[in-house]
Amino acid sequence: MTPASRPTTLQKIGEFGLIRELQKHCQSLRSDVIQGIGDDAAILRTSHQEALIASTDLAIEGVHFDLAFESFKDIGHRIAVANISDMAAMGATPKYLLVALAIPPNYSVSNWRALYQGFKKPCQAFDISLVGGDTAASKSGLFLCLTILGQVPSNQALTRRGAKVGDKIYVTGTLGDSKAGLQILQNQAKSKKTTAGKPYETFLKKRHLRPTPRLAVGQHLSRDHLAHAAIDVSDGLSGDILHLCEASRVGVELWASQLPLSRQCQAYAATQGHNPIDFALAGGEDYELLFTIAPRHQAQVSDLGKRLRTQMTCIGEIKPRAYGLRLKLEGGNHRNITRQSYDHFSTTRTKS
Amino acid sequence: MTPASRPTTLQKIGEFGLIRELQKHCQSLRSDVIQGIGDDAAILRTSHQEALIASTDLAIEGVHFDLAFESFKDIGHRIAVANISDMAAMGATPKYLLVALAIPPNYSVSNWRALYQGFKKPCQAFDISLVGGDTAASKSGLFLCLTILGQVPSNQALTRRGAKVGDKIYVTGTLGDSKAGLQILQNQAKSKKTTAGKPYETFLKKRHLRPTPRLAVGQHLSRDHLAHAAIDVSDGLSGDILHLCEASRVGVELWASQLPLSRQCQAYAATQGHNPIDFALAGGEDYELLFTIAPRHQAQVSDLGKRLRTQMTCIGEIKPRAYGLRLKLEGGNHRNITRQSYDHFSTTRTKS
Repeated sequence: MTPASRPTTLQKIGEFGLIRELQKHCQSLRSDVIQGIGDDAAILRTSHQEALIASTDLAIEGVHFDLAFESFKDIGHRIAVANISDMAAMGATPKYLLVALAIPPNYSVSNWRALYQGFKKPCQAFDISLVGGDTAASKSGLFLCLTILGQVPSNQALTRRGAKVGDKIYVTGTLGDSKAGLQILQNQAKSKKTTAGKPYETFLKKRHLRPTPRLAVGQHLSRDHLAHAAIDVSDGLSGDILHLCEASRVGVELWASQLPLSRQCQAYAATQGHNPIDFALAGGEDYELLFTIAPRHQAQVSDLGKRLRTQMTCIGEIKPRAYGLRLKLEGGNHRNITRQSYDHFSTTRTKS
Repeated sequence: MTPASRPTTLQKIGEFGLIRELQKHCQSLRSDVIQGIGDDAAILRTSHQEALIASTDLAIEGVHFDLAFESFKDIGHRIAVANISDMAAMGATPKYLLVALAIPPNYSVSNWRALYQGFKKPCQAFDISLVGGDTAASKSGLFLCLTILGQVPSNQALTRRGAKVGDKIYVTGTLGDSKAGLQILQNQAKSKKTTAGKPYETFLKKRHLRPTPRLAVGQHLSRDHLAHAAIDVSDGLSGDILHLCEASRVGVELWASQLPLSRQCQAYAATQGHNPIDFALAGGEDYELLFTIAPRHQAQVSDLGKRLRTQMTCIGEIKPRAYGLRLKLEGGNHRNITRQSYDHFSTTRTKS
């Protein structure tokens, strides 16, 4: 076969190339499909009062999780939160979970039970019912697919698309902790270290293993019509701001000095000789909410943060599309924001 | 480790043991969950007028399909129909499909496109919108998880649970063709035979690769309140009648002489020295509908069959639970019906 006729591999086109192609081919003409492929979840008009919000997420052993340093319960919990976080990004109330599970037959029943205990914990916390699924034997590791269904009053669903020039960009909580926690877990597994480690290590590992979905924030932003656009930080800030700007057809200026970093993430980054900002930009699986609001609503968002005891940080401003995506550094210079998150088809570690 | 303390493997408890355990642990207390785990799909009361029907299905390379004798388009089509058939079993109208897909990065973009063409064909035929999904790289073959969402007017959803003693049992179409077709495909792949084969082979292979979901039948049975219980034949008649009887807490007498067999299946079984009835009992993936009705509705079901041009065959009668599950043989003797379909955790070939 000559190079010219060699078929294009998925590796070459990449994950986001595939998603773009899918969006092109799968545009629905039906008016009940308010949002199809291309957001955190689909928005479906199933009744006059409410829209149904649906999202499905894969999690694969060796790609999205590693049994070398995560228990079955950890995995179940974290994957369920990843799924629930998609509902937060839409301002929806999650209601039902379906779990499809391919599992090697030689795994023990107690492994399987622990996995379900992991799913059940956040489900109980947020009153989500596990209503269905499928189980099959896997020849090669654990393979999960979670589908979550939620509801939001009609016309209140948040999407990535509505950001307006001049909007302020906010993020909940702190960024980069999950990536730092994952690195610590990986290094400890590699060195077979079982000691407790430093206190910041414990904090960061927990942030990776037991993330918090920002459901209440998302629901308030949607109910009070505060946010113009929203997304959850699952791919890393650099990747997710790109998704939001592409969907809204705008540019952005992010402020490096304002990125919310935990002191634990800063302490860890210092020991590694890294700039903690890079953890924030590249770190996936923070499951914080990134959203844009009109400047006149800043006080309201600040109040909301106080009421929900959730840190809310203004980290930048939406600019016209031609401005591009730029990060304003502490000295005043700018650098372009490029995707530092992972592509499923060129790496083995990515968002779930 | 002593044998006594060896942990129980999933292989030992089996797929149906797991489902029973799940049903026990995941019973929802919320009144909007009309049916959770344990039927073809979940039934969820999302509005006053309509119930939401949701089902998720796994399909794994080497377990549920084999690229040695199925094209990507075939796989997409068949897996989508398997999913749509769950809606038929509930009497629902499928509306939305979500596709999660783990695919090796070295597969070509045209493989991926063919797979989606396979999904799209039955979706277009039944006006189902592909509204979301997830894509990840797989290190070990193709892995699919399809989630289908449908609607049915409140209180009209069919379940496995309502069969009554004295009910007649009906099945649509013919049984066993898919299993026969699969065997032919497997044998041809093994012998690397590429000749066209006998006409009955072409028919049976098509019945395996391009099954028909019985949506219209399911919808009529539900709308006209004809069926007391229904299930789709995805595990094989012996397995699915067992599911239905367990859920309805009844026994059954099936009549071997009445099982609908295509002449093609009979011709193939003859060449193999098999009783074609065994294909009907053990054959999964027929995606026909199995349902029970009050005897007074037999004429109506017969009319429905004529109107929809679908063969409807009465194959037995519901008996009290103590009767057990028996097959009446042609000579008048009975034999017990035991599951001849597969358990995911003791074989590599099973329903999708």
